[in-house]
This record gives sequence, C-alpha cells and structure tokens, in this order.
Amino acid sequence: MSVVGMDGDLLKDGLKRVQAEIDSVFDAFLPVPSDTRARLVEAMRYAAIGGGKRVRPLLLVTTAELFGVDRTSALRAGAAVEAIHCYSLIHDDLPCMDDDDLRHGKATLHHVYDEATAVLAGDALHALAFEILADHGTSSDPFVRSELIATLGTASGMNGMAGGQMMDMVADEEGVTYDLQAITRLQQLKTGALLSCAVEMGAVLGKVPVEGRAHLRAYSRDIGLAFQIADDLLDVEGDAQLAGKALRKDEGQGKQTFVTLMGADQARDQARMLVDQAIGHLSSHGSEADTLRALARFIVERDR
Amino acid sequence: MSVVGMDGDLLKDGLKRVQAEIDSVFDAFLPVPSDTRARLVEAMRYAAIGGGKRVRPLLLVTTAELFGVDRTSALRAGAAVEAIHCYSLIHDDLPCMDDDDLRHGKATLHHVYDEATAVLAGDALHALAFEILADHGTSSDPFVRSELIATLGTASGMNGMAGGQMMDMVADEEGVTYDLQAITRLQQLKTGALLSCAVEMGAVLGKVPVEGRAHLRAYSRDIGLAFQIADDLLDVEGDAQLAGKALRKDEGQGKQTFVTLMGADQARDQARMLVDQAIGHLSSHGSEADTLRALARFIVERDR
Repeated sequence: MSVVGMDGDLLKDGLKRVQAEIDSVFDAFLPVPSDTRARLVEAMRYAAIGGGKRVRPLLLVTTAELFGVDRTSALRAGAAVEAIHCYSLIHDDLPCMDDDDLRHGKATLHHVYDEATAVLAGDALHALAFEILADHGTSSDPFVRSELIATLGTASGMNGMAGGQMMDMVADEEGVTYDLQAITRLQQLKTGALLSCAVEMGAVLGKVPVEGRAHLRAYSRDIGLAFQIADDLLDVEGDAQLAGKALRKDEGQGKQTFVTLMGADQARDQARMLVDQAIGHLSSHGSEADTLRALARFIVERDR
Repeated sequence: MSVVGMDGDLLKDGLKRVQAEIDSVFDAFLPVPSDTRARLVEAMRYAAIGGGKRVRPLLLVTTAELFGVDRTSALRAGAAVEAIHCYSLIHDDLPCMDDDDLRHGKATLHHVYDEATAVLAGDALHALAFEILADHGTSSDPFVRSELIATLGTASGMNGMAGGQMMDMVADEEGVTYDLQAITRLQQLKTGALLSCAVEMGAVLGKVPVEGRAHLRAYSRDIGLAFQIADDLLDVEGDAQLAGKALRKDEGQGKQTFVTLMGADQARDQARMLVDQAIGHLSSHGSEADTLRALARFIVERDR
C-alpha cells in the first residue's frame, strides 16, 4: 500500500536523521579528557553513541516541531531523554540486575569494561541528562528548562522508570503474580513513563499550555502500552540477531507479560487497537503529525 | 578556650537542627507507596533518613542564611545535595566498587536488601535530587531552580564526583601513581565538588551575583581539601567504632593519599593551615558567618 510505503520512508528518514544528530550532541557533550577520567567518558560514549533506535528523541523532536520549536533545542532535550534511557539500560544489564551480555548488537558495558565502570558510567549519564537540560543553550527560558527537568526527573525516578523496574524485580524474586491491571501499571511506569515524557517535553519546549496537551498525553499513553506489548511479542517471536539482544527471556523466567496473560493473538490485536487509537488522538493535526502517526505504526511492526 | 566552646555549641546545635529538618524533608518526599514499589522507597528511606552528619546541607543552609534566604527553600536544596551524597555512598559501597559492609554505623544497603535494590535505590535518589530542585516549592524563581540544577548536575557528573571516583578507581586498578598535584585534583573532584556545590547553591538561592561569590568559592575550596586530608588522617588514626565505617583501608590497598604523600604530621599542619585560610576568606562577614567558621574547624577535628 502506498501509504505504508510513504509512512515507512518518512519514518526511516526521520530516524536516520535523528540518529546522526543525537550522536553529534553526545559527541559534543562528551569530549574525552586527557586525565584518568578518560575511561569513564569512553565508557559513556560506548553506551550513548552509535546505538539504539532513538525512538524517544524522535518522539520529542517531532512533537516539538508541531509547535515550531528550534531544532537545536529539541535535539538537546532529546539527548537528555536518551541519556536517561542509556543509563537505565547500562544498570539493567548489570550482573546483579538482568545480567545481559548483548545490547544493540554489541557486548554490554560491564563486559567491555567492568562492573564498577558500568555503574559509574550509568551514574554519569544520569547526571549528564540534567546538566544538558539546565544548560542555557537548551532553552534560553529558565521556566522551560525547569519544567523539562521536573518532567524528566519524575519519569525516571521512583514514580516512573525506577519504580516500574522495582515492581518488575519484586515479581521475579518474590514470585508476586500481577493481573492485567497491575502489569499495565507496571509497564506504564517502567517503559511508558519515559516515552510519554519525551512527548511531554516536546510540548513543554513548544510552551503548549497544560490544557492543550491532553491529546498528546493520550497519544503517548497508547503508544507506550503498544510499545511494551510489542516488546513482549518480540521476546516470544523475534529474531535475536535482528533485535541485537537476548530474547526468550520472559518464558525462561516464568514471567507474567501481556503475552502470557492475553495470548499472542489477543496481545497483537490489542497493540494494533492501541496504535489506531493513538493515531486517532492526532486528528486535530494535519500532515505535520505524519511522523508521529508513522512512529505509532512502527512501534508494533518493528523487529528490534 | 571559651571561643572553642561557643563554636562547638553553635555547630552542635546547627547540625542537630539541620539533621532533624533534613530527615523531615526526606520523610515528606518519600511516602511509602502501597504497591510493590514499597521495597524501593523503603530502601531509599533506609539510606537517606537518620544517618550522616549532614555537613553539606548545613553548609548550604548557613550560606543561604547569610543572604536572607527562606529556610524552607534552603532545606529543600540541602536535601537535594544530600540525596546526591547518599546515592553516591550506596553505589560506592557496592561489592563491585568499595565492597563496604558498614555505613553510618549501620549495615550497607546491599546487605540489608540486595545489590539490585541498592543500584536502583541509588538511581532513584539521584533522580529525586533533581525532582526536588525542579519543584516550585523549592524556589518560585525558575531561573534559580535552573541554576541550582546546573550547579548540582556539574558537581555530581563526570566533571565532578563521578569523574573523581573514576580517577580513584584507575589508580587502584591500573597501579597509576599520582603526585600531590594529581591527588589534589582527584580529591577536588571526588569530595570537594559537592562540598563547594553546597556553598554555591546557598549563594544561588541568595541571588548573589557571580562576582560576589569569589570569597565563598575560596572558602569552600579550602575546606573541601581540608575535609579530604582529615578523612585520610581518620583512615590512619581514627576509631572505626566512632566513625561508623571500616578504616585502615588506604594502607591495605597501597593507596596514595595526602597522608602517604606528606606524612601524618605535615598533612595535619596542612589541614589546619587550610582551615585558617578558609576562615580568612570570611572576613567580610560578621558573626552571622560564625557557623561557617565553626564548620571549617569541625572538619579537621571530627572523629567520624
């Protein structure tokens, strides 16, 4: 279908462009020092540059574009969200957490360096995110800077990603079983919070009043859930080579996911329904929101 | 000497008051949720409440007081600095880092819970610091909020605490030997940056123009260095029971410190000289800076 083709190109071009741009923001913020801190910064660069789909920065940049935000600002904010995403992956991959060997098709950071360097590189990327947002170059408006930081801080902390991660750990270790409602809540925190945060930060940069953000929040909530369902399906049905990370992990751990709770077919239907619903929330926007629409579709169709 | 007695009381009262106040800020920001995130928040509370000397919050609150800052604002900013300090201790104590069993006289967090919870609780306290600073209740002025965040982000990241920690690790693991200049630089990053940051944040809250902060920066640089020399002396000469943590660690690891490089006597003289110099930088202030003077003296005389 031609729409799908157009969609695909729009998205492919958007992701490719943002990938190169985010790499260059990180490159600028991470010059390797000439003292023994070099190992730390090299580790941060290994984790942050040249890997990842950059879905969160693309969400942020594309939302910001709807409201005429300067691209340099949006990319810096996008790099901040991505720094949080990268730090969380480094810590999640640690032996004491998920003990993963592969990430974005490369060896995980603690294998290339060591565990201590991985802990520290994660911490330093965490701090970098807030440094970037507090920088006058990201926005000349201090109110915008402060709102960006509040949004990202909440999405990454105990009421966001870290909280969701803990709910997940407790289920694994203490054998707590969650029902669909609890799994939905867990995933909204663990994965959804940062995706929604990316969209919200685009709106903050665009100085959209809170009452004008409802449709964007609804969009990001739906794609966040669809994203996680797709991830669960990928774990069951995906190709580890393409995904660039270990799969079939949920089943081995006897973990409750959308797929174990609903079955693969119903999960797939649910993800598609959420994507349609997400796209529906964008009806007040014209073709300028086509990338957001394409992103929503990509989220359930991706193979990595 | 009566001045020492007065000094001691001033400081004891100041610390005691700030300890109770910081505990209550953390208590307010860390309500235990009724879902399975409870373990995360309980771990954060274990690490953040009821331990530590609270030197950094006292530095911040006392500096802020010089410029008539509202105490509630200063205490929130103080809690943010302390959240960063607490998170760094949790991660430093991990088996893959310093592998410590005791902190503030209590079992370290990964012993009470587990390593994964300790990593995550550290991460969540890290995020909490920036959440507190971005909150409108900390300062109604967005420029102040953003400057506080920029200051703390720099002090905690690769160009501050995390950078110093890496320099320290590289020395341990790769057998790099530092001279006195390099050790001074390492300690300025690892310990000094956050102490200086506390003073600087007090000045930011007080809206002191940058050109009016030079004497405060000189004061905090001197006490930062004195603090680390005192720490090195404590490691050699201190009482582990009083200190509430393992001592005699530097010697066992063949580590370069101010004491190994200068000898204990010269190190002690140097620390005292730095304290006198730090107090000298406060000469433009009257008795309202007495707590800062007493804090400088305490830093070299403390037994924990």
